[in-house]
Amino acid sequence: MSTKKNSLIGGLLQGDKRALAKSISLVENEGAAAIELLDALHPKIGNAYRIGITGPPGAGKSTLVDQLTKLYRRRNQTVGIIAVDPTSPFTGGALLGDRIRMVDMTLDDGVFIRSMATRGSLGGLSKKAGDAADLLDAAGKNFVILETVGVGQSELDIAESADTTIVVLVPESGDSVQAMKAGLMEIADFFVVNKADREGSNRVIAEIQAMLQLRERQVWQPKVLRAIASRGDGIGEISEAIESHRRFLVEKNLLIQKRRARMLKKVHNVVRFRFERAFWDEATRQALDEKLENYQDSNLSPYKIAEDLMVNFKRKLGE
Amino acid sequence: MSTKKNSLIGGLLQGDKRALAKSISLVENEGAAAIELLDALHPKIGNAYRIGITGPPGAGKSTLVDQLTKLYRRRNQTVGIIAVDPTSPFTGGALLGDRIRMVDMTLDDGVFIRSMATRGSLGGLSKKAGDAADLLDAAGKNFVILETVGVGQSELDIAESADTTIVVLVPESGDSVQAMKAGLMEIADFFVVNKADREGSNRVIAEIQAMLQLRERQVWQPKVLRAIASRGDGIGEISEAIESHRRFLVEKNLLIQKRRARMLKKVHNVVRFRFERAFWDEATRQALDEKLENYQDSNLSPYKIAEDLMVNFKRKLGE
Repeated sequence: MSTKKNSLIGGLLQGDKRALAKSISLVENEGAAAIELLDALHPKIGNAYRIGITGPPGAGKSTLVDQLTKLYRRRNQTVGIIAVDPTSPFTGGALLGDRIRMVDMTLDDGVFIRSMATRGSLGGLSKKAGDAADLLDAAGKNFVILETVGVGQSELDIAESADTTIVVLVPESGDSVQAMKAGLMEIADFFVVNKADREGSNRVIAEIQAMLQLRERQVWQPKVLRAIASRGDGIGEISEAIESHRRFLVEKNLLIQKRRARMLKKVHNVVRFRFERAFWDEATRQALDEKLENYQDSNLSPYKIAEDLMVNFKRKLGE
Repeated sequence: MSTKKNSLIGGLLQGDKRALAKSISLVENEGAAAIELLDALHPKIGNAYRIGITGPPGAGKSTLVDQLTKLYRRRNQTVGIIAVDPTSPFTGGALLGDRIRMVDMTLDDGVFIRSMATRGSLGGLSKKAGDAADLLDAAGKNFVILETVGVGQSELDIAESADTTIVVLVPESGDSVQAMKAGLMEIADFFVVNKADREGSNRVIAEIQAMLQLRERQVWQPKVLRAIASRGDGIGEISEAIESHRRFLVEKNLLIQKRRARMLKKVHNVVRFRFERAFWDEATRQALDEKLENYQDSNLSPYKIAEDLMVNFKRKLGE
């Protein structure tokens, strides 16, 4: 490994912000360098506790994350935040604007914040967010918070990267609760009804609780908490809830299982990434382009094209 | 090809509902049979016009889809609907409940409705939805409507499968519009503000228009329409808007480009799918399981494991 990479790793292990930022960029660009870096850092991960915070747009997730971070900082815990926005795949970094108010935190060496948006086509955002969480973990952060906007598949994937997942809703989310109950029920270790001073908060809490009672008994029974994150209300309770869930996971040997499942998924991702890079080289991409020239020829199906390309690939491997 | 498969294809080409349902199930299960079927049907696709309808939960998308379908039926056009719910990955079919009111449509041979939810891990929901759209296209439907819940990555993928994409919002979506503008701006060919008799509809329309003016000039300028889908108001205007976009795409040769891009993506998906099936055979999965027994050994990184497995795989291919 080059000296340059060694100094990057050295900086990262000391929690240096520039080294961290650079490393996360490597991971975002998904090059061979990223795999080399993550491989080298692997022995250093596994100490951070990972918290997933998700929910619909406008639920006040960032405010809640900010307040939770401040609480951890008062307890001398370090925090890494990955704010993931799967809804802005083209322009990137939509969340950065929201984050300007956090400038007081960015001066604090115990906090690292990074926004990530979908870019490129190779691999998924959730994979990159998970890799970034690994980097923050290796850099010695006590807590890594994965914050995601929305209610789609990406958030479910990201929930898999978290040890404890919190779904944030607001009193106005009533309709949404109904519409998205199946997915939410499965990923939430806690629900937080934020802006709980607004009208309708009791109704939403009742709705969530009713849905929780409907489902089959699980090993972990999610609780519903209230917060007014903008005033800091309920943040202490949220941190206690996270701790109680953490203890539960450790006692039941579930934390180990979660991490094993994450590792398995990572192996799958790496295999897929390496294969795609090997397969879609310049020559193959060109061959596909040429075939697509005649794509209106109804005898040329994408399935036949794929088969042809794979036969070529196997021949190359055999050479 | 077996007689059984031939009769399935025969039935599907005649628009037989049972053959369609069976075929979509094949596609959902992602077996080799699905690829064979799609390959055989490939010469028959390309005639249906594909409409994507997306937006947050509770925006009234299904009602709008129902009304649009009824309008098309009055014009003797046939319709296939794929209602995709990426938020219910575990239980499946959350939308089916909503669809009970459509029982009058399910008696109509000119309409086919199917709900799809994320299930399993291989491949994505958007790929399956695109394949199902191909089947409906081959079955001779004049319009295929892809309806998706939420605002995440899945919806963006599904928008790629559509010729015209409509984003449905409600007056209450104000906050959401702000939060998710980047993604929405890129995929929407039209915005429909549904439930437009409610308070705040003018404000939401103004917000969308302001955002549309902020962005760079595009070839196609999205319009904002109003509807009260539950009363059928605005549905005629939506169908006209779709027709005007369709004419635009045809005139500018953009429809052909869209379909070429879709075909390219399909080749990528097929290659990935075939590789993963070949790679993750019983022996490889077992080898991974064994390696993960010692996953707490910090020297065993997922990157090294992946490398080992790939070396084995190449050796097998060479044999």
